[in-house]
Amino acid sequence: MAKSKFEYVRLFESDDRCLPNTWIVVRVDGKGFHKFSTEHDYEKPNDIKGLSLMTKAATSVMEEFKDISLAYGQSDEYSFVFRKETQAYSRRSAKLSTNVCSLFTSAFLYYWSEYFPTSKPLYPPVFDGRTVLYPSNQNIRDYLSWRQADCHINNLYNTTFWALILKGGLTPSEAEQKLKGTLSGDKNEILFSQFAINYNSESEMLRKGTVLIRRKVPITLPNGGTREKSQILQEHGDIIGDEFWNRNNHLLTIS
Amino acid sequence: MAKSKFEYVRLFESDDRCLPNTWIVVRVDGKGFHKFSTEHDYEKPNDIKGLSLMTKAATSVMEEFKDISLAYGQSDEYSFVFRKETQAYSRRSAKLSTNVCSLFTSAFLYYWSEYFPTSKPLYPPVFDGRTVLYPSNQNIRDYLSWRQADCHINNLYNTTFWALILKGGLTPSEAEQKLKGTLSGDKNEILFSQFAINYNSESEMLRKGTVLIRRKVPITLPNGGTREKSQILQEHGDIIGDEFWNRNNHLLTIS
Amino acid sequence: MAKSKFEYVRLFESDDRCLPNTWIVVRVDGKGFHKFSTEHDYEKPNDIKGLSLMTKAATSVMEEFKDISLAYGQSDEYSFVFRKETQAYSRRSAKLSTNVCSLFTSAFLYYWSEYFPTSKPLYPPVFDGRTVLYPSNQNIRDYLSWRQADCHINNLYNTTFWALILKGGLTPSEAEQKLKGTLSGDKNEILFSQFAINYNSESEMLRKGTVLIRRKVPITLPNGGTREKSQILQEHGDIIGDEFWNRNNHLLTIS
Amino acid sequence: MAKSKFEYVRLFESDDRCLPNTWIVVRVDGKGFHKFSTEHDYEKPNDIKGLSLMTKAATSVMEEFKDISLAYGQSDEYSFVFRKETQAYSRRSAKLSTNVCSLFTSAFLYYWSEYFPTSKPLYPPVFDGRTVLYPSNQNIRDYLSWRQADCHINNLYNTTFWALILKGGLTPSEAEQKLKGTLSGDKNEILFSQFAINYNSESEMLRKGTVLIRRKVPITLPNGGTREKSQILQEHGDIIGDEFWNRNNHLLTIS
Repeated sequence: MAKSKFEYVRLFESDDRCLPNTWIVVRVDGKGFHKFSTEHDYEKPNDIKGLSLMTKAATSVMEEFKDISLAYGQSDEYSFVFRKETQAYSRRSAKLSTNVCSLFTSAFLYYWSEYFPTSKPLYPPVFDGRTVLYPSNQNIRDYLSWRQADCHINNLYNTTFWALILKGGLTPSEAEQKLKGTLSGDKNEILFSQFAINYNSESEMLRKGTVLIRRKVPITLPNGGTREKSQILQEHGDIIGDEFWNRNNHLLTIS
Repeated sequence: MAKSKFEYVRLFESDDRCLPNTWIVVRVDGKGFHKFSTEHDYEKPNDIKGLSLMTKAATSVMEEFKDISLAYGQSDEYSFVFRKETQAYSRRSAKLSTNVCSLFTSAFLYYWSEYFPTSKPLYPPVFDGRTVLYPSNQNIRDYLSWRQADCHINNLYNTTFWALILKGGLTPSEAEQKLKGTLSGDKNEILFSQFAINYNSESEMLRKGTVLIRRKVPITLPNGGTREKSQILQEHGDIIGDEFWNRNNHLLTIS
Repeated sequence: MAKSKFEYVRLFESDDRCLPNTWIVVRVDGKGFHKFSTEHDYEKPNDIKGLSLMTKAATSVMEEFKDISLAYGQSDEYSFVFRKETQAYSRRSAKLSTNVCSLFTSAFLYYWSEYFPTSKPLYPPVFDGRTVLYPSNQNIRDYLSWRQADCHINNLYNTTFWALILKGGLTPSEAEQKLKGTLSGDKNEILFSQFAINYNSESEMLRKGTVLIRRKVPITLPNGGTREKSQILQEHGDIIGDEFWNRNNHLLTIS
Repeated sequence: MAKSKFEYVRLFESDDRCLPNTWIVVRVDGKGFHKFSTEHDYEKPNDIKGLSLMTKAATSVMEEFKDISLAYGQSDEYSFVFRKETQAYSRRSAKLSTNVCSLFTSAFLYYWSEYFPTSKPLYPPVFDGRTVLYPSNQNIRDYLSWRQADCHINNLYNTTFWALILKGGLTPSEAEQKLKGTLSGDKNEILFSQFAINYNSESEMLRKGTVLIRRKVPITLPNGGTREKSQILQEHGDIIGDEFWNRNNHLLTIS
């Protein structure tokens, strides 16, 4: 097609290709989700429907971007790990973060009614996104450990905070005051002694977050034979220790 | 709150703040919208409802980000121009592009039913985004001129292409063949002589796209007095020539 | 020529082209020059030979890079301003900073003996370099004003500091103590009342630094005719006010 | 010290810190060294004095920057490999490239007279520099292999080219013509059959380039005891195969 004399402005676009041979993580985070979850009557401290909708949206992202080998989500965030050697969008940072972020947002809203059938969102929900590079297997594991440790720290706090309010009758500021300076052990003790809650018996999904991975699973064909098909599986276990990685050692290997 | 030994991974995040004192443009583009518009029965060559939904989504973005002084949209894209001196998100490039892109996507889907009341989207629509910097007033005007020239070129082509098919009975490949190598004048002539269409009489929204700007408008108070209020106004005129900029000279001035 | 299977490593080089239509400044700074100047018996507070050698090195840089329209130097630093529209090295940031920095260093050492004929440097002197972008004429003027204001502040301090030591008999730490918390006026007063020095009568080169610009000058040809030739001129006046810029208004105009 | 109202221009400097946990290579390259070597009567095809001066300059760089664990040089270039975990200059890319490049240039000129005692350089020699990141051990090995393969390809060509001229009596353009399209085997054959030169018997320094590494060596103390001291050693062997890396396995291990 004809080109205009204004074309030169394209030269102002910068080349933001990610360093080759590094893990690319795109993390999406809910914008103002503390307010959003309150306004949409999310159950406290955790809303299973809300978390499941996050995972549904993340699954949509993984179905679209085949080079995402693993996703990890907790609270109002999800991290997507692209294979080290991915050439998706020529590894352009903004292309990766905006596409993932837009699809995640879109799927979150699109599937909303499956999880919250009786209400419509009051306004369009928003997630921001960022791209971060990790060179080594240890770095990418530490990144994911960081997010899972964050999940643990926040969920233990929130579980105790809301127990104090919902079951203990404290006001939010009283609960905050009571928890100021407490360690993990203190919170476990409050839960157990005051509310007979054994924190370690709480749902793993809440304590550990959600891991999505791709796995080949055998499917039975109409003729009785079988073949392998790639499926996205959901887990809620520990990803800080070695067990998960030994069991899924394909994830850290260049294919 | 307690911090984990994995915190170090935050050091891998890069600082992507935009050069100060430059215009920041975030452009969102529909992903696979040729296919999307066909699958959702958009009218050809233009679907007014679809374009209006784009503008509704863009308006939502401008309402949220007060530092966007102007937006320009056409086809499946919208460009947002942040004020040169904006400190939104500390001018971090990825924050700006992902937030704008996510909100645009979210609003597009959120308001879908207002424009397409009888159908639901078949799948979540996706837009990508990018951030580009322009140092001078001439550069930012040339950027917007580039997009409006692109609108003109594409819309004249599409108008003629679809006239040949819908009114002239050609197949798509016959129409493509007929238009190969034609200049603007040739397409105007085909429209006029074969279909009695004066291209310049077509709707300005289709030929020129849509400009959104903020303007102070006087509103009448209950007590009969007046005060100024900022509103987002829609225009469809030329932004390549000087007239628009003379009329809106506040847009290129540092406030 | 034949290529090896290792060629792929070139893909790890990043594209660092500077944003178009912005002023590119490369500033070189002496590394450890406080120590260097002491070890090489530079006169205190200022060594004219040392400053002149800096300017000689800067002139070599300007002779090589025709797109540098102005250079400003003081103390152990020199800033080189490339024309906004320069395409030198395709505006690649590292190419510009390393070439300028290497040539500056090389010329500094190469011409050393012209300024210090009786001594050889004790070790290779080193300068580091950086590239900074400035979008507007005001920004680039403010950058240069910043460096000249820095020159003023440091030179007034050093002049007073060394007067207290060399003429006042103070030790360095006594001089430092005496100047702690003083304002410009205080230092001017010390110089005047104790040492009969009128700071404003000191050499402009020391108080204002050195500006190098290119100017067309007429030269007389052997046949008696004249033609214009580009020469690098040295000035030591104020570049913060408008006078310099009015007199050299070609510097801020796109040629 | 007092600050001026122009200080804000510092905000225009960008943060160019290198991704953590990646190998940082700074490569310096002679600018116009084909011309430089001709004008300074370098012997063809190789000038041992010139190459030795390069290695002397590189050694100066390694003595200054303790975090450079290996350097590799050939022809008019030298690559410096910083340890993955280096925090030198906070890993700022421009600081690393300009400091290394400036010191290399400075040392090259400073030590010139030790290698070329009878002549002074005709003008200041210049080297440019660049910073490139390599995430994995394989990548950094492949980078060095790329440079050594380049050394081999160029040196075999140059050796044959200059034999044809200096011993075969051809003009440069005749020699160029004769070598057009030849493979390695062809050049080896020309050298052997026409000039009785067995290329593999040529000096390893010319065929393989120069590797500088740091090694702990025992030194005898005045009292007869011994202690270890870090020294910079020079080698000229193969660094493409495993032998070198097995023998120096500390180089690829995080210390």
